[in-house]
Amino acid sequence: MFRKGYVGAGVRDIVAEAGVPQGSFTNHFRTKEAFAREVLDRYFDHVKVLVGQALNDESLTPRERLRRYLEIITARLEADGFARGCLIGDFSLEAASLSEALRERLVAIFAEWRGPFEVSIAQAQAAGQISSNFAADDLADFLLASWEGAILRMKVERDGEPLERFKRIVFATVLKDAHG
Amino acid sequence: MFRKGYVGAGVRDIVAEAGVPQGSFTNHFRTKEAFAREVLDRYFDHVKVLVGQALNDESLTPRERLRRYLEIITARLEADGFARGCLIGDFSLEAASLSEALRERLVAIFAEWRGPFEVSIAQAQAAGQISSNFAADDLADFLLASWEGAILRMKVERDGEPLERFKRIVFATVLKDAHG
Repeated sequence: MFRKGYVGAGVRDIVAEAGVPQGSFTNHFRTKEAFAREVLDRYFDHVKVLVGQALNDESLTPRERLRRYLEIITARLEADGFARGCLIGDFSLEAASLSEALRERLVAIFAEWRGPFEVSIAQAQAAGQISSNFAADDLADFLLASWEGAILRMKVERDGEPLERFKRIVFATVLKDAHG
Repeated sequence: MFRKGYVGAGVRDIVAEAGVPQGSFTNHFRTKEAFAREVLDRYFDHVKVLVGQALNDESLTPRERLRRYLEIITARLEADGFARGCLIGDFSLEAASLSEALRERLVAIFAEWRGPFEVSIAQAQAAGQISSNFAADDLADFLLASWEGAILRMKVERDGEPLERFKRIVFATVLKDAHG
């Protein structure tokens, strides 16, 4: 699904890749939509581990934790030669308009994903590390949405520069160090 | 292609929708990839008209022209009930990894798209309307990439709030009024 997309990955491809009979697939998942939902959930479980690694790192300031998250993701994307992006972003553009169930799941995923970022941003604001001109949840949503945009450009360019540009500009403006 | 995606829109669907025999399609386009390239080019031609409407509007300051562009696009997206996004963004996530020809075309489209934004940003910087901390081409690339991210979130939420949030935050930070 990551390589061929939601539409492109047929059930036949999936069972061939997994080396299981097609009956095993249909026993477990009524539809490709149900399978995609499971794939998306497992992907997001993995993302949440990376979020925790960065945003729960007490050795860093809240502002530094935000940057740490983006650096962890950048390293993952680089390891794939900048050829694969984010399955959540891919599904947002490809599957959300085809499946109402996946769209609703994506709404919930973005809301849950935002949570720890909202907390770190609120902590950074309380510590005077970044400006309090915007609500923490607004900034968290902006950050994750714009980062998806940077990943989109990265996939087109096959290059990490859109990610570096994003970090350079965002940390000097939207998440500007209020002490510096 | 806009509704079903690059993979989802089969040649059979396309000729059925167009009400032409399949032979007409294969006479004009050797492959679906060639057809998609034509669709993408025509879409971008339309985008360029909208860019011109906003960024060549001499009655506005260069900074106001940037906002005008985002308002024009917002109105278009709203007219579609926020259910369709941007074909360039859709193809970036779905088709760029499947077709090298489309990926290369997308690289060229983003470079051309950036041009007039770079000019308006440089003019706004020269007039002291926005900060000169970043190069105009960098800011233009950031703006278009992050806007694609906002559209991605809009498609998931089926709501204009991600677009409004983007404008609210970007014009108060990255494109902050240097006079205000």
